[in-house]
Amino acid sequence: MKTEIIKLYENREDVTLTTYILQDSPELLAGKPRPAVVICPGGGYFNCSDREAEPVAIKFASMGYHTFVLRYSTYCEGTGAFPDIMKGIEANENSRYPNAMREIGKTFLLIRENADKWLVDTERIAVCGFSAGAHNAAMYATNWHEDVISEYFHEDKEKFRPAAAILGYTLSDYIYMRDAIKEYNPMDRAFFEASNTAYLGTAEPCGEMLDMVSPARHVTKNTPPVFLWATSQDTLVPVQHTIRMSYALAEKKIPFEMHIFEEGPHGLALSTQATAGEKSQIYPDAAKWADLAGCWLEKRFALFFRETIS
Amino acid sequence: MKTEIIKLYENREDVTLTTYILQDSPELLAGKPRPAVVICPGGGYFNCSDREAEPVAIKFASMGYHTFVLRYSTYCEGTGAFPDIMKGIEANENSRYPNAMREIGKTFLLIRENADKWLVDTERIAVCGFSAGAHNAAMYATNWHEDVISEYFHEDKEKFRPAAAILGYTLSDYIYMRDAIKEYNPMDRAFFEASNTAYLGTAEPCGEMLDMVSPARHVTKNTPPVFLWATSQDTLVPVQHTIRMSYALAEKKIPFEMHIFEEGPHGLALSTQATAGEKSQIYPDAAKWADLAGCWLEKRFALFFRETIS
Repeated sequence: MKTEIIKLYENREDVTLTTYILQDSPELLAGKPRPAVVICPGGGYFNCSDREAEPVAIKFASMGYHTFVLRYSTYCEGTGAFPDIMKGIEANENSRYPNAMREIGKTFLLIRENADKWLVDTERIAVCGFSAGAHNAAMYATNWHEDVISEYFHEDKEKFRPAAAILGYTLSDYIYMRDAIKEYNPMDRAFFEASNTAYLGTAEPCGEMLDMVSPARHVTKNTPPVFLWATSQDTLVPVQHTIRMSYALAEKKIPFEMHIFEEGPHGLALSTQATAGEKSQIYPDAAKWADLAGCWLEKRFALFFRETIS
Repeated sequence: MKTEIIKLYENREDVTLTTYILQDSPELLAGKPRPAVVICPGGGYFNCSDREAEPVAIKFASMGYHTFVLRYSTYCEGTGAFPDIMKGIEANENSRYPNAMREIGKTFLLIRENADKWLVDTERIAVCGFSAGAHNAAMYATNWHEDVISEYFHEDKEKFRPAAAILGYTLSDYIYMRDAIKEYNPMDRAFFEASNTAYLGTAEPCGEMLDMVSPARHVTKNTPPVFLWATSQDTLVPVQHTIRMSYALAEKKIPFEMHIFEEGPHGLALSTQATAGEKSQIYPDAAKWADLAGCWLEKRFALFFRETIS
């Protein structure tokens, strides 16, 4: 396995792509390319959680896929210094829409450029994310063919097409969220207002802006197949976001699979010891999502083998 | 993840330890050490199969353990040049007993030396192997406390103690094998005679030698808990080897778990696309062994978390 950290901007340390490139062998694919999964950790657009980064990459790598962790632009810029959200925060141009989404586009171009070296099947690249990272992945899944990405990079739209999206406890509808957070406790409400400032430049964005960043409102025939999972007890990002996204996919007849586990809080990642910092982050039922996602993905991402030798 | 290839002998390229060291984080173990799994690929003591190496390391890494692939001494010395076994082969001092087993001991010392840097819990290191690699792991599990290892390295026996062993389609009883191969087809029989030459220096070793390298005949109270798996249809290394090993463990009251799947040939590795070069190497039932092994291992190898923050 080749792990390497690639900076997406020459002059910034915080936005990086970490590669987990599987070693090929004459006994394995013998030079044939493998599909890949790009992982966007969550963190409210403040940071990128380590719990939703490398351990998830290794889980998908264990299924036979090359994986990539994208640490996209966030408010704290990888410093780990969290702002005092109760006081309200100043905007940061770096973490504002559409940078994080475009960085997924940049990742697709980077993978294409290195596809021969890394043996990547560029027709089969999935985006996977958690929480705000799932929102970023969902934004990409619903916007990859829009000018906001292709015109910015002056590249053919097809180069950005994702083959699938995997969304864990995603946000999907900021207009729904605007009303939902009215019922929140002051701390969680301050978190979302600060997150809005980080991602949209203002604590109370206008309806048009909220609509624009709501993937559940922009599913089209260009949206790839989607795997969704969440827990019904998530109090930070209510499961309604996941259900709303699934409804939009159903309406547009986009293939999808959804698993809502009853128990478990927000932010479970793999929901196993591999992504836990404490026991309360392990729910064995919810942990089934990753193998379910593996089965779902394999329908589209099955490796191409040589013919069986009799 | 930090992957690095460490040579076990300065002047040899073929005997190596490849590290798969998980990245820690304040969000994960925050400096606490992790257990480790040392993986010995199979290959009849002729070589070390890539199918039983990195993909297996990544599978156990996905469970939250540091992993290591040990490419121990084999007849072909990593060249991939396979001898014409039908003609019979000359002995090779490098691949002879007890070198491969001692190299697991050397691996334990290496891991101990680097434990602070790699954050390894040296009380919890498992050995895992497949086929001849499982035999090597089983030899180690039944000999780690013997002078053949500790006196050779002039080190305290306790430094070599494995916490568990995981054996996939293992060989365990060379005396049983001597009779069993009489029924083999000429090709498979020639394979085992050549393998004997590779590992024991002669195609037809004496009974004393065969006994010495039969882990099923040397289980003691010092043998660690063992997880065994195999397929009942294995025609190359009959499942009797696995059953004989389990019987010896039962007799000595060593904790063990065993899963014999009905279908599948020899050499399935993970039995998924991640370790396959062709579809005939994928049996979904047998593929359950790795998660079963993960559950079994976690009873002993559960990570130590901080207390839950309320």
